[in-house]
Amino acid sequence: MSSTRSYAAQSATSPLAPWTIKRRSPKPHDVQIDILYCGVCHSDLHTVRNEWGNAVYPLVPGHEIVGRVTAVGDHVTKFKVGDTAGVGCLVDSCRECDNCKDGLEQYCDTGAVFTYGGAERDGSGITQGGYSKSIVAHEDFVLHISDKLPLEGVAPLLCAGITTYSPLRHWKVGKGQKVGVLGLGGLGHMGVKLAVSMGAEVTMLSHSPSKAADAKRLGAHKFILTSDAEQAKSVMGYFDFILDTVSVEHDYNFYLGMLRTNGVMVCVGAPPVPAQIPVFNLIFGRKSLAGSLIGGLPETQEMLDYCAEHNIVSDVEVIAIKDINEAYERMLKGDVRYRFVIDMATL
Amino acid sequence: MSSTRSYAAQSATSPLAPWTIKRRSPKPHDVQIDILYCGVCHSDLHTVRNEWGNAVYPLVPGHEIVGRVTAVGDHVTKFKVGDTAGVGCLVDSCRECDNCKDGLEQYCDTGAVFTYGGAERDGSGITQGGYSKSIVAHEDFVLHISDKLPLEGVAPLLCAGITTYSPLRHWKVGKGQKVGVLGLGGLGHMGVKLAVSMGAEVTMLSHSPSKAADAKRLGAHKFILTSDAEQAKSVMGYFDFILDTVSVEHDYNFYLGMLRTNGVMVCVGAPPVPAQIPVFNLIFGRKSLAGSLIGGLPETQEMLDYCAEHNIVSDVEVIAIKDINEAYERMLKGDVRYRFVIDMATL
Repeated sequence: MSSTRSYAAQSATSPLAPWTIKRRSPKPHDVQIDILYCGVCHSDLHTVRNEWGNAVYPLVPGHEIVGRVTAVGDHVTKFKVGDTAGVGCLVDSCRECDNCKDGLEQYCDTGAVFTYGGAERDGSGITQGGYSKSIVAHEDFVLHISDKLPLEGVAPLLCAGITTYSPLRHWKVGKGQKVGVLGLGGLGHMGVKLAVSMGAEVTMLSHSPSKAADAKRLGAHKFILTSDAEQAKSVMGYFDFILDTVSVEHDYNFYLGMLRTNGVMVCVGAPPVPAQIPVFNLIFGRKSLAGSLIGGLPETQEMLDYCAEHNIVSDVEVIAIKDINEAYERMLKGDVRYRFVIDMATL
Repeated sequence: MSSTRSYAAQSATSPLAPWTIKRRSPKPHDVQIDILYCGVCHSDLHTVRNEWGNAVYPLVPGHEIVGRVTAVGDHVTKFKVGDTAGVGCLVDSCRECDNCKDGLEQYCDTGAVFTYGGAERDGSGITQGGYSKSIVAHEDFVLHISDKLPLEGVAPLLCAGITTYSPLRHWKVGKGQKVGVLGLGGLGHMGVKLAVSMGAEVTMLSHSPSKAADAKRLGAHKFILTSDAEQAKSVMGYFDFILDTVSVEHDYNFYLGMLRTNGVMVCVGAPPVPAQIPVFNLIFGRKSLAGSLIGGLPETQEMLDYCAEHNIVSDVEVIAIKDINEAYERMLKGDVRYRFVIDMATL
């Protein structure tokens, strides 16, 4: 075991503050990583404040982790010391169920082990995340990171990137298709970049006029101000696919109306209240409302390689870890374009 | 124009009673059909009682129509006098929008013309349905009916058959898949027969223990009494596809829980209250909730041919038209196995 500096929440109401955690010594298949950058995901804040009711304290959040390999177990074949490597939202799963065998570890039948707040499968404790100096994980849950791209912009790909990439791939978004991206935040801005890179015609759907210029800069072909009835009307029955990244309450039916026949709207954000859907809104037009959760390990590696090839990173604001609590407050106000990333050298 | 005997509702509260309507003389592309049988769909009752708020009176319901061609217009090429023919839920559409061109006339951008209660595109009036001696329709909306099968069992295929066939085909249900059919009524019993014929493992999901024997007789491989917690638990995370034929309020989340990863639940019934879906129930397992409306003309013909080839008809109780109001009351109690069909010789 080694002591590792970190930032942790001690309760749902306390700010994040310095804390020391124990990391296990690498086991035969483990990779030890010195963390360089860790992205700040809205899930971190939800969990720190126990808004999903499942937090365990002290809690070190962070699941958008990139760093350098500093040690490997005897049986590790995929990594060597000095490699650039990443850890995303998952650090373990059963490896035996159909989902795991299909590379969909996020849907592991026995429950995947999340990077923070998860119960280790061997009963050794609760996982702690990437707001820390180092992390140790099984090589099967460690990703190869290209050195072609700036690492601070790569970190958010481990959650925001794969969460948007996976549904775009699963529903075969590409050339000739009209895609709407709902909500321009950490997820939405990656959704726009990725859908554009796949050849789709991409429309940003937002109720903030201030996002129009950014949407264009990110590559969106159109911007629809959803609070403008005329603009909204112009895209009714228009989209083949809508990526809904909004995690506050909103009217799904309004956006289902923007789908054409056979259209699919995929939710990657989860508001605290149920969606209310008169099923007639699905029946007329054979529409689907679906959900998608991050992505499995093979697809996460595929996405990282794809982004390296297509020069895609997240737009980030790099912060010192002492500013994390202020960053949370700014995130709540939507005052970040589009992802905070902690420079772990500041810890 | 010719006078045609029918049964009509004069208001949302009056019983169906004899009435005389006018049918147009066949235009160059029209087919005139002497109606032999007309199925009784739950939509007929919803519309007669104006439960969807769009009824126009006097109203002759009925959209599961089979009969004999008695006259054809000069330019008709697809039918000749004496042919057995059918009319389903649609009698016209724009023919020009993408949906119509794709053979999805039911989703016509300008609104398909439904067989009863629909506004004729030429402004000539409101369509009247199949509880009548004859009907006249454009040949493009008339179906060929095989004489291999008993016609009274074929009539319900025009709505109950295509409504269940279409989603099974669209979502590629077949061998190796586990399919749940929710609700054993007019739609559900066709869903079971069709899904079984396509090679899927089919489970009937019902809260009526009395349906178990019938489910087996119809070909279902399993029966799950949904009110039995142990039985329900045994199919959690089990199905690739659920066909939801229920049109009264029910808990969608309970059934979404029965889907495995990538599972799809398709609604063909529309309860009067919105579905309440916490989107987490879609996100975990990448599940989809979708809807489907009848089917287009090419697929309806395909379904009729398929049923003729596979010897599939609806289980029916043939009634005299004077008993239609009593049949409605019995239908409301679920006291029909599984479709009333009116013998139009009794009119």
